[in-house]
Amino acid sequence: MKIKVVKDLLESNDAVAINIKKRLKKYNIFAVNFMSSPGSGKTRILEKLIEKYYNKKRIAIIEGDVATTLDSERLAKHNVPVVQIDTEIFGGGCHLTAGLIEKALQDIQLSEIDMLFIENIGNLICPGSYNLGEDKKVIVLSITEGSEKPLKYPQMFRIADAVILNKIDLAPHLDTNVDDYVKNIKQINAKVPIYKISAKTNEGIDELIKWFDADMTE
Amino acid sequence: MKIKVVKDLLESNDAVAINIKKRLKKYNIFAVNFMSSPGSGKTRILEKLIEKYYNKKRIAIIEGDVATTLDSERLAKHNVPVVQIDTEIFGGGCHLTAGLIEKALQDIQLSEIDMLFIENIGNLICPGSYNLGEDKKVIVLSITEGSEKPLKYPQMFRIADAVILNKIDLAPHLDTNVDDYVKNIKQINAKVPIYKISAKTNEGIDELIKWFDADMTE
Repeated sequence: MKIKVVKDLLESNDAVAINIKKRLKKYNIFAVNFMSSPGSGKTRILEKLIEKYYNKKRIAIIEGDVATTLDSERLAKHNVPVVQIDTEIFGGGCHLTAGLIEKALQDIQLSEIDMLFIENIGNLICPGSYNLGEDKKVIVLSITEGSEKPLKYPQMFRIADAVILNKIDLAPHLDTNVDDYVKNIKQINAKVPIYKISAKTNEGIDELIKWFDADMTE
Repeated sequence: MKIKVVKDLLESNDAVAINIKKRLKKYNIFAVNFMSSPGSGKTRILEKLIEKYYNKKRIAIIEGDVATTLDSERLAKHNVPVVQIDTEIFGGGCHLTAGLIEKALQDIQLSEIDMLFIENIGNLICPGSYNLGEDKKVIVLSITEGSEKPLKYPQMFRIADAVILNKIDLAPHLDTNVDDYVKNIKQINAKVPIYKISAKTNEGIDELIKWFDADMTE
C-alpha cells in the first residue's frame, strides 16, 4: 500500500518532468540538476560556472533548500535570475519535484536564457528518485565525505551523467585517497565522467566547462 | 491526501517507538540516535566511544545504511555486537524507522548491554521526523559542511539533545569560522549543548563522554 502510493507519486512526477523537458527544448535551454549531500560545495560551484559563462551564456538558477534564502542571495549577487524554493513551506520536503520546478519556471523568462541550473536539496538519497526535466544529472561529492560514499549511496551514482569530486585542495589534510573515490564511483557506474575540482582554487573547473559545452552542442 | 498518509506513518512509527523505549528502560539501557549528513564522521565517533567505554560499559550498535555493510564491519572489529540495517532492501529508504529498530533488537541480547548506539542513515532531513525510542538524539555536523547548515536544515537542530561539531582539526584549512557554527546552532536551539571534537585527534571526546555519563545517571 505504501509502495503503491510512492509509485503513483513518481509516475505523476515523471509526467510533469516530460512536459518541462519539452518546454525547455522549445527554448533551446540546457538544464542541469545538481545533487549532493549538504555542504559538498554546490553553491560555490554554481558561482564559478556563472563567472566562467559571463557574457557567453545566459544562466538562470532554481535554488532548492529546506529553509532560508541564503544560497539564492549569494547567487543573485552575480546578476542572474534566481528563483528560491523552500520546501519547509510544503512540510520540509527532502527533494525537489517536477511540480515545484514547473511553478518556479513561471518566474523565469525562458526566451532570455540559455542554461538552467537547478541546485537540489542537500540530500544524497531522495532527490535521485525525482526527474525534473533536466538534460543532465550531476552529482557533487566532497572529498571530505569519505571514499566509500558511492558504495553506500549507490542510487545517486547509478543515475549520474557526471560526478564532480569537489574540495580537491583539501586532499593533503585528509586521511583519504582520491583514487579510492574514483575506483568506488566506477564500481557503481563504470562509464560516468568524473571531474576532480576545487571551487576554491579553480582547479579542474575548465574541464568541467568543456563537458557542459560538448553536451550542449550534442 | 499525501499529508494524511505521512501523518499516519509518523503516528504508527511513534507507537512502536514508545514500546521500544519501555523495553530498553526495563533493561536499563541508554540509547542514542546519531544523525547527520553523509560523511560527517559518525562511524569514527562511534569507534572512539567504544574505545573509551571499553571495560566500563557494554555497548551494542545498530548501523543504518542504504547499502553495504562497510560501517558495521568497521565497528564489529571492536568486538561489540553490531546489527546492520540496509534500507535498500526496503526500497532505498532515507531514514531508519522504529519498526526497523524493533526488528534489529531481536538480534541483540538486551540483558547483556548498557548502551545502544544507533547510527542513522546519512541524511540531514528525513531521519529527524522518526522517533526510534532513543533517550537522546545527537546531531553530528562536520565543519567542512558550512556554518549556515543549521539555518538551512533547522528541523534536525531543533530536535537535537546535543550537537557534535566534528573534524575540528581541519579548521585551519577551511574558509570557515567555528564560532559561526555555534552562533547558527544557537539561533535554532538556544540551549543545546555543543561539543567541538575531532574523532581523528581525540580533541573534545572526553567532554562528550562526560555528557553521556551525566545523562545516563539522570
